[in-house]
Amino acid sequence: MIKVGIIGSTGYAGQEIVRLLLNHPETEIVWYGSQSYVDKRYSNVFPNMFKLVDDKCLGDDFPKLCEEADVIFTATPQGLCSNLVSDDLLNKAKVIDLSADFRIKNVERYEEWYALKHGNPALLDEAVYGLCEINREDIKNARLIANPGCFPTCSVLSIYPLVKEKMIDPSTIIIDAKSGTSGAGRGAKLPNLFCEVNESIKAYGVTSHRHTPEIEDQLSYAYGSEVMINFTPHLVPMNRGILVTAYANLTGDYSYSELREVYEKYYKDEYFIRLLDENVCPETRFVEGSNFVDINFKVDKRTKRVVMMGAIDNLVKGAAGQAVQNMNIMFGLPENMGLKIVPMFP
Amino acid sequence: MIKVGIIGSTGYAGQEIVRLLLNHPETEIVWYGSQSYVDKRYSNVFPNMFKLVDDKCLGDDFPKLCEEADVIFTATPQGLCSNLVSDDLLNKAKVIDLSADFRIKNVERYEEWYALKHGNPALLDEAVYGLCEINREDIKNARLIANPGCFPTCSVLSIYPLVKEKMIDPSTIIIDAKSGTSGAGRGAKLPNLFCEVNESIKAYGVTSHRHTPEIEDQLSYAYGSEVMINFTPHLVPMNRGILVTAYANLTGDYSYSELREVYEKYYKDEYFIRLLDENVCPETRFVEGSNFVDINFKVDKRTKRVVMMGAIDNLVKGAAGQAVQNMNIMFGLPENMGLKIVPMFP
Amino acid sequence: MIKVGIIGSTGYAGQEIVRLLLNHPETEIVWYGSQSYVDKRYSNVFPNMFKLVDDKCLGDDFPKLCEEADVIFTATPQGLCSNLVSDDLLNKAKVIDLSADFRIKNVERYEEWYALKHGNPALLDEAVYGLCEINREDIKNARLIANPGCFPTCSVLSIYPLVKEKMIDPSTIIIDAKSGTSGAGRGAKLPNLFCEVNESIKAYGVTSHRHTPEIEDQLSYAYGSEVMINFTPHLVPMNRGILVTAYANLTGDYSYSELREVYEKYYKDEYFIRLLDENVCPETRFVEGSNFVDINFKVDKRTKRVVMMGAIDNLVKGAAGQAVQNMNIMFGLPENMGLKIVPMFP
Amino acid sequence: MIKVGIIGSTGYAGQEIVRLLLNHPETEIVWYGSQSYVDKRYSNVFPNMFKLVDDKCLGDDFPKLCEEADVIFTATPQGLCSNLVSDDLLNKAKVIDLSADFRIKNVERYEEWYALKHGNPALLDEAVYGLCEINREDIKNARLIANPGCFPTCSVLSIYPLVKEKMIDPSTIIIDAKSGTSGAGRGAKLPNLFCEVNESIKAYGVTSHRHTPEIEDQLSYAYGSEVMINFTPHLVPMNRGILVTAYANLTGDYSYSELREVYEKYYKDEYFIRLLDENVCPETRFVEGSNFVDINFKVDKRTKRVVMMGAIDNLVKGAAGQAVQNMNIMFGLPENMGLKIVPMFP
Repeated sequence: MIKVGIIGSTGYAGQEIVRLLLNHPETEIVWYGSQSYVDKRYSNVFPNMFKLVDDKCLGDDFPKLCEEADVIFTATPQGLCSNLVSDDLLNKAKVIDLSADFRIKNVERYEEWYALKHGNPALLDEAVYGLCEINREDIKNARLIANPGCFPTCSVLSIYPLVKEKMIDPSTIIIDAKSGTSGAGRGAKLPNLFCEVNESIKAYGVTSHRHTPEIEDQLSYAYGSEVMINFTPHLVPMNRGILVTAYANLTGDYSYSELREVYEKYYKDEYFIRLLDENVCPETRFVEGSNFVDINFKVDKRTKRVVMMGAIDNLVKGAAGQAVQNMNIMFGLPENMGLKIVPMFP
Repeated sequence: MIKVGIIGSTGYAGQEIVRLLLNHPETEIVWYGSQSYVDKRYSNVFPNMFKLVDDKCLGDDFPKLCEEADVIFTATPQGLCSNLVSDDLLNKAKVIDLSADFRIKNVERYEEWYALKHGNPALLDEAVYGLCEINREDIKNARLIANPGCFPTCSVLSIYPLVKEKMIDPSTIIIDAKSGTSGAGRGAKLPNLFCEVNESIKAYGVTSHRHTPEIEDQLSYAYGSEVMINFTPHLVPMNRGILVTAYANLTGDYSYSELREVYEKYYKDEYFIRLLDENVCPETRFVEGSNFVDINFKVDKRTKRVVMMGAIDNLVKGAAGQAVQNMNIMFGLPENMGLKIVPMFP
Repeated sequence: MIKVGIIGSTGYAGQEIVRLLLNHPETEIVWYGSQSYVDKRYSNVFPNMFKLVDDKCLGDDFPKLCEEADVIFTATPQGLCSNLVSDDLLNKAKVIDLSADFRIKNVERYEEWYALKHGNPALLDEAVYGLCEINREDIKNARLIANPGCFPTCSVLSIYPLVKEKMIDPSTIIIDAKSGTSGAGRGAKLPNLFCEVNESIKAYGVTSHRHTPEIEDQLSYAYGSEVMINFTPHLVPMNRGILVTAYANLTGDYSYSELREVYEKYYKDEYFIRLLDENVCPETRFVEGSNFVDINFKVDKRTKRVVMMGAIDNLVKGAAGQAVQNMNIMFGLPENMGLKIVPMFP
Repeated sequence: MIKVGIIGSTGYAGQEIVRLLLNHPETEIVWYGSQSYVDKRYSNVFPNMFKLVDDKCLGDDFPKLCEEADVIFTATPQGLCSNLVSDDLLNKAKVIDLSADFRIKNVERYEEWYALKHGNPALLDEAVYGLCEINREDIKNARLIANPGCFPTCSVLSIYPLVKEKMIDPSTIIIDAKSGTSGAGRGAKLPNLFCEVNESIKAYGVTSHRHTPEIEDQLSYAYGSEVMINFTPHLVPMNRGILVTAYANLTGDYSYSELREVYEKYYKDEYFIRLLDENVCPETRFVEGSNFVDINFKVDKRTKRVVMMGAIDNLVKGAAGQAVQNMNIMFGLPENMGLKIVPMFP
C-alpha cells in the first residue's frame, strides 16, 4: 500500500483527492493536512465523508509527513510547496504539487505573473510537468511533479496535436474558456456567494490570467518556438466542469478527416481522451466526476479556421484525478487504477 | 458473472443502473432495452457512456430477454412490468421492478391511486417490497422485487424506528418532501424545461401523490394497524436528491438520546444508513451519487413533536442503487458490492 | 417628494429598497447608509445601479439622517435599530425597521429567542407590526413600523383567515417553509458559497428559528389565545422566493368552497394577494420581483386536514416591497404606488 | 393609446413584450395571439400574469388584427411573418418582426442559412434593421422593422465603434458568445430539460449558427466592405442573459483611452448603453430584466489584440425591450418610455 499525505486536504481539490483515493485499491491516506481545521474531524469539514473517514485534520509538519508518507499531494495556494520541499525531503517522499510553483520553468516569468518570489528555483529543472498524455515517460521517474492547472490541462490537450504538427498558425490561437465555480476554491469570499454567481456569467482575469504563461509554455514546447496566445476564462453558474473553445487559422486547406487523423495519431490509445464522433460537441455534463477529456473540433471552410473544443471536470482531470494519474505512473501502477469512473449524469 | 437485462435503460433511472453496474465486479449487462431508441447506440443516448458502452439499444422482447439474463431490471412506467412478467418467466430470470406495479398489495388501492387496471394480481402476494434494511430476509429468496419509490424509501427509513416502537402517534404524521428534477424523468414536457424549473419551488400532487399509499402501507406494517398520513412533495431546482422533513407528535416525553437509542437499535449496523451526529441536519449534497441515507431528528420540547429528516440521492438509494442492493441480496453477494461510492461533492 | 434614508443600503434587502424607490414617483433617496462601504460609490457595490445612482455611501449618523429624511428604512442586523431610535428622533422622521427589534411585543420572549438585550423596550408598545393587509389602520398613523420577517409574512398571510375564523385547530399547525438564498444575506460566509448551496437542499434552525415566535404572536392575536406551532425553514438553490406549505387539522368537515369563502372575505379586495384558482398551487417563479402573495390550499378529505400554500418574493413582499407598502400607507399614498410590478418570468 | 397586437405572445419573447407593455403608459394590448393556446386565458399560460391580464388568447388572423391594432409584434418562428405581411397591411398597422425574416437583405443568403424559401422578398428593401442605437433615423419612418437577433444585438453593439473607425482588422474578428436558456424558447424539447442544461456548458451551432450572417452584414455596413467572422454561441445554465467576448487584432498600437474615446463618440449619449469603468467587466446579472447593454474592453499589449465584452438580457435588449424601443421611436415617444427598468439583482 502506498502511504499518502495530503497538504491542503480541506479545499475542494484536496477533498477530491480523498474521494478518489478512497476507491483506489493500492493507497492509504495517512495524513489529512489542513491549516484551518487542525484537530477537527475531517468528516465534519466534509460531511459527505461521514462514516468513510474517521481521521482528524493534521497540521503542515512537512518533514514529519515525509517520514510517514510515500507520496505527498500539495493542494495549496501558490508559494507554499516551493518553500516546503527540498532535495533531501524528495529522497524520502515523492511530491505531486497541485499549485503553480513548479509549472513554469522560467523563474522571472513565474515571479512576474504570480507576483511572488519563487521559494526554490533550484528544483525547477527537475520538476516534471505532469500532463500525463504528453510527458508520460518523464513522469515515470520523477520525484517532483508540477500537476498542471485546470485550464492548461483542457486547453493544451485540445490543441496539442494541431500545434505539434503545425496544422495551425500558433500566432492566431485564441482560447475562450468557461469554468464551474469550484475552480474558485472554498474561501469565503463575496464574489463566490451563491447569489453572486447564480444566474450570471462573466469573464475574469482578461489578458492577465496566470494560466496564460503555463499554456503558452506547453504550446511552445510542442511547436518548437515561442507561442503567444489570448486566454480568457469565464465563470459559469455550475459546480464542476471546464469547457475550452479555441480558435486558430489553419495553415492549409485541411478537411475534418485530415485533422482527425492527427488527433488520432496522438490520442487513439489514450484511455482518458475521448475523441468524439464528427459533429458532436463536448459538454461538461458528460465528463462530470470522471478523469475523461472529451475533445472535438469543427473546420470553418469560410474563414479557414478551426474551432477546437475540449471538456473536463476541473476537479478531476483538472486537478485531483490527474494528480492520481501521475501517482499511478510514478509508482508503476496501471495508469487508470482507481480512475475508471463512469461520468455521473445528470 | 450475473447476466443483467434492463428494460427502460434510456430513462434516468435506467441509465443510473448502467452507471452502477459498470463498476460492479460480478455483473455483465447483456440487454440495453428501450422503446424509443431501438438500434441506436446507447452512448449516443447518453454520451457520458462514450467509449464505456458499445452496445446498441434493443427492444422489449421480454421472453427472449428472460432466456439471456439472470436478472432483469424494469425501469419503466407503471403498468408495463405487471403485463410482461409471469410465473413461468420468473423461473428463468429474477425481476426487480422499479415501477409501482407490485408495491401495493391491495389491488383496489393500486387501481384507485394509479387509475390503471393491474396486469397481474396473481403475483402480488409473492412480490417482495425491496426496502432492503427492513425486508432483507424476504428479499434473499425472492423472484420478484417491488423496488420502492424514491419518496417512500426516504420517508419510511426516516420514520420507521419511531413508528415501529410506537414513540410517535401515527395519526399525526406529516411528511413534507423535496425532490430534485431528475425524479420527473427524461420526457420532453413543458413543466420540466430548464426555464420552468430553475429559480423556483412548488408543491405538486398535494393530497393526491401516488407515493402516499405506498408510504402508508409500509408504516402500517410497522405499526401493526392502519396508518394514514399527509404527504406533500416539492420540486427543487437541482438535478438529484430527496430531502424528507417529517413531523409527528411524540407519545411520551422523550429526550433526543432516548429516541436515538431506538434509531440505533434498527440502524446501527446498516452500511447505507448514516445516523448523523446530534444537531446535524441531513443535506442532499452530502449523499449525491451514493446509496447512503443520512438521517437525523430534532425533539421540540415546546410542541412535544419530533421533526425527522432524511436525505438520499433519488436516483441511487431512491431507485437504481437500491435495485442493485436488492440484486446483491438476491444473489448472495455482499450487500454493498459495487455500491461503496463516496458521495461526490461539490 | 418624500425624502428617504436607508441604513444598511448595501445588503440585499437595502438594495432592493433602492431598486423599488428608483421607480417610485414620490420619493427621493437622500442617504445611502452603509457600515462597510462608506465613501464608496453605491454603483460600485451594486453595478446594476451604474448610471442610475451616482451617490456615495454614507455612515450611520442616525441623528443627522433624521434631520434630512422624512422616513428611514433600517435594513440592518437585529439590535441596531432599537439602539438608534428614540421618541425624540421619531418626531423628526418616521422609521420602518426591517430588523426584528420591534416585532415581538414581549421583551423576555425577544431576548430569549434572539439572545440579545433589547435596546429600547419603551418603544415596543408604540411600534406597529407592519403586516399591511392585517394592520392597515394602525399603520396609517404609526411613527415606528416593525416590518415583518420574510417567513412570517408568507406564513401568516397564508394561514390567517382560517385561524381567525377558527376553521382550523391552531395546536396542529405545522409550517414547512422553503427560501431562496438571498434570505441569508450578503455576508461572505462559507455555507453561502455557490458550491455549498447549489445542487442541495437542507433544513436549518429546526425547532429554533427566530421567526417562530413572530409567527406564533401574529396567529395568537388572530385566534384570540396563545398559539404554538412548528416552523421549519429550508434553503433552496435559487436566488429569490419563499414557499410556505402549512398543515392543520380542520375543525369541521369543510369543503374547498367553504374555506375559499373565508379567504375571499379577508383578501378579495387586496391588490397584492392573489387567491389562485382551485387546484392551482403557488410557485415562487410567478411572483418573482413583485410584491404579490400567491395563495391557495387543498382539503384532504382522508385526513381531515387542510394544506395551505403561499408564495412570495422574499426580498419584495418579504422585505423591501412591504416596507415601501408601509411607507405608502403612512404617507397617505396609494398603497401600490411604485409597486405595480409585473412578476418577471423566466 | 397605441393599440398593440402580439403574434406569438405565448413564447418567452412574446410574454416579455407583455411584461414590458403592462408598465408602458401609452399602449394597450388588444390581441394576445397564439397558435397553441387559442381561447385559453393568457394568465393560465403565464400565471405570473394572474390578475394582471384577463384576456384569452386569440388566433393568427393577421388581416383582422391589422384593422384593430396600430402596431403588431410578431414573436414567431422564421418564415411566418414574411408570409403574413403585405404592402397593403403595412398601411394599416406597423409591424415589428422579432423573427429573422427581414434581417438579411440578400435573399439567397437568407435562404441558404435558414434553409427556407423567403415569403416576401419585395419588402426586404423597405424593412429597417431595428438596431436602435445605429439606425435610429431610419426607424423613425419605418413601417416594417426587422428586430435584431439577441446575439447580433450584443455582438454588433460591443464591436461597432472599433469596426466603424477601423481600429481593428475585421478579418480577425472572433465572437465567442454565451446565452441563458430562455433563448432556446419554450418548446418542449429534450435538450432544454432542466436536467440536460443544468450543471453543464456546451457550444452549439459551431461555424453554422444563423446569427452569423446577420452579424457579418451589420459589421460589413459599418466597415464599408465585406466582413467575415467566426461566431460561436454557448448554452449557459441560467434563465436570462447574453455575454459576448469578442477578439480582434488592433490596426495600431492603441491605448485603452484611445479606444475608449471612440466608444464614447458613438455611445456617450445613449441611455441604454453603459460603458463601464476601466477594468470592470460586464456581467449578465447586472443587466437582468433591463434594456441596458453593458460594454467594456481590454487591450492586450502582448498580442496586440483587443478583447471586447458586452452583456445584455437576451429577452429585453435582445428581443422584447428593443422591440418596444423601436416602437417608441416609430411613434415619436421618448425612446426609453416604459423601459426605465432598474436591473433586478440578485
